[in-house]
Amino acid sequence: MADALRVDTAAESAISDTVAIVGCGLIGQAWAVVFLRGGCSVRLYDANPDVACAAPAAISKRLEELDAAGLLSEKGTDELLSELLVCDTLQDTVQYADYVQENGPETLEIKAKLTQAVDAYAAAGVAIGSSTSGIPTSRYASDVPGRNRCLVAHPINPPHLIPAVEIVPAPFTDYETTDCVMRLMERVGQTPIRLEAEIDGFLVNRLQGALLTEAFQLLEQGIATADGIDKAICDGLGLRWALMGPFQTIHLNAPGGIGHYVDRYGPMYKDMFASASSEPDWAAALAAGLEETLCTRFPVRDLPRLQAERDTALAALMAYKQGHSSKMKI
Amino acid sequence: MADALRVDTAAESAISDTVAIVGCGLIGQAWAVVFLRGGCSVRLYDANPDVACAAPAAISKRLEELDAAGLLSEKGTDELLSELLVCDTLQDTVQYADYVQENGPETLEIKAKLTQAVDAYAAAGVAIGSSTSGIPTSRYASDVPGRNRCLVAHPINPPHLIPAVEIVPAPFTDYETTDCVMRLMERVGQTPIRLEAEIDGFLVNRLQGALLTEAFQLLEQGIATADGIDKAICDGLGLRWALMGPFQTIHLNAPGGIGHYVDRYGPMYKDMFASASSEPDWAAALAAGLEETLCTRFPVRDLPRLQAERDTALAALMAYKQGHSSKMKI
Repeated sequence: MADALRVDTAAESAISDTVAIVGCGLIGQAWAVVFLRGGCSVRLYDANPDVACAAPAAISKRLEELDAAGLLSEKGTDELLSELLVCDTLQDTVQYADYVQENGPETLEIKAKLTQAVDAYAAAGVAIGSSTSGIPTSRYASDVPGRNRCLVAHPINPPHLIPAVEIVPAPFTDYETTDCVMRLMERVGQTPIRLEAEIDGFLVNRLQGALLTEAFQLLEQGIATADGIDKAICDGLGLRWALMGPFQTIHLNAPGGIGHYVDRYGPMYKDMFASASSEPDWAAALAAGLEETLCTRFPVRDLPRLQAERDTALAALMAYKQGHSSKMKI
Repeated sequence: MADALRVDTAAESAISDTVAIVGCGLIGQAWAVVFLRGGCSVRLYDANPDVACAAPAAISKRLEELDAAGLLSEKGTDELLSELLVCDTLQDTVQYADYVQENGPETLEIKAKLTQAVDAYAAAGVAIGSSTSGIPTSRYASDVPGRNRCLVAHPINPPHLIPAVEIVPAPFTDYETTDCVMRLMERVGQTPIRLEAEIDGFLVNRLQGALLTEAFQLLEQGIATADGIDKAICDGLGLRWALMGPFQTIHLNAPGGIGHYVDRYGPMYKDMFASASSEPDWAAALAAGLEETLCTRFPVRDLPRLQAERDTALAALMAYKQGHSSKMKI
């Protein structure tokens, strides 16, 4: 990792990292917005010169939209754009970078070659993150000489509006590389989530896939229409999940917290998916630390207050959605 | 169903239905808020007189919170509260009602007895909905003389802030009863979702259960921390799902819509859950009508505009969450 990323906390906010964006389609453009907004200098490259040429206008438009929504803190669009540079060659793009975010096609062979090239040009210690949603670093980077600085940094579409980023190191990735990318992502306002293993679909697509699989199942069985299933989420569970994750949600949904919830509803959920081949033991997870984690962050005695705060947030979200849906008809 | 609920659309807004709330703990109170806000007269009852006595103050507080959030349209809290009546007996509560919402304990025997009593007092044709999350109408009402007017109307907590309501008729429930309850729920601003069968967990808890089961599995396998899993939802997927359901989300996430998405990512999801015992066929679901449904409501040629509208909504949601989280630390 370059020295620029190894700084004292006190000095971090003054640092202007240089980030190379390799591949500037929709995801690359959104990453450029993330890093410009976060105070970085951004160097762009795309193998297709037309795509590279078109990127700055698209990035500018997105920055203006963020500004209009009150999501740019100090600097305006023009000042941020002055830190954007489109480069002609891959070498020129990455050689001065403190971090490289690669957004190439989702093809093993292309990603392996591209990573090899980036590794050849990037300065020693600079981390190389890939936006891949499906190809783990072990597969595309195992033959790359600098494979220990490679990892996945998988965004959720669109990354400049959805902060979660999955940070997935390979077994051969340096711990320090992972740590530096986690800190960089936090510094630019994203929510990095570190995974401990290269599981298929990582974390986000496994959670989405579990929900989608059940949604397709319910549709196939004729239990509800597609529209009914969609509404169960966007007028139901999704409103809660925009504010808190699944564990925190159930923790706030029983007077005694998550332990009480699992005790009361665990058997219902167990019966619901009785045919599933492998089944996690919810009560064992509680005992192994989940209950302590949640009760430490959100003590049971504070649940009434936390529930009231959740409801205030839900009311604001509903008021926003009502005003908004009349305009955009969702 | 009482005549009051069988009205011409033109006259519907002028109708003041009388709704009986049987059981007024947290869910009953929230239902009272829903029906008062929706222009109904509400009669309250609880077997525990202390609970019944305490309910109006709690309901008043929630109405004031809605007012503060701009979610009461015309009438203020005082005017709405003038339509609230606490009754001393079950008979007095339900005999004048056009609809009964029962919120008794989740115990088969108690629910069966309570429904029997409500059925004895309620006027002919009046629908009796239960807030139960786990006991289907077939089980608690099969011996009730008026079982054909019984059905489940299962809210998501808290129902005055989360509009989705699952409407689950038993095989013996009159079609017209179901239809009238659907219309009543729409009239008071909820989002009723009709289920075609009494499946365990209904729709909402099956979707939540599928996500929770995967979340517990990922935690058990040590893939991520509970906090990381929660953030993957509240700083990731949940933001999208607050605006649109899972099918609409993937429809907007590929240039050619849901068909394109399933074609591109279907195999990834299939591999992800390859060990699952039963697996729905996503492509078959598309062919059976899902693709047509989505492409009719959200034509592929409109996807760029719909994506831009989604992003505008996400920006507003993020701006709200950022301002909000500094206050409530979620």
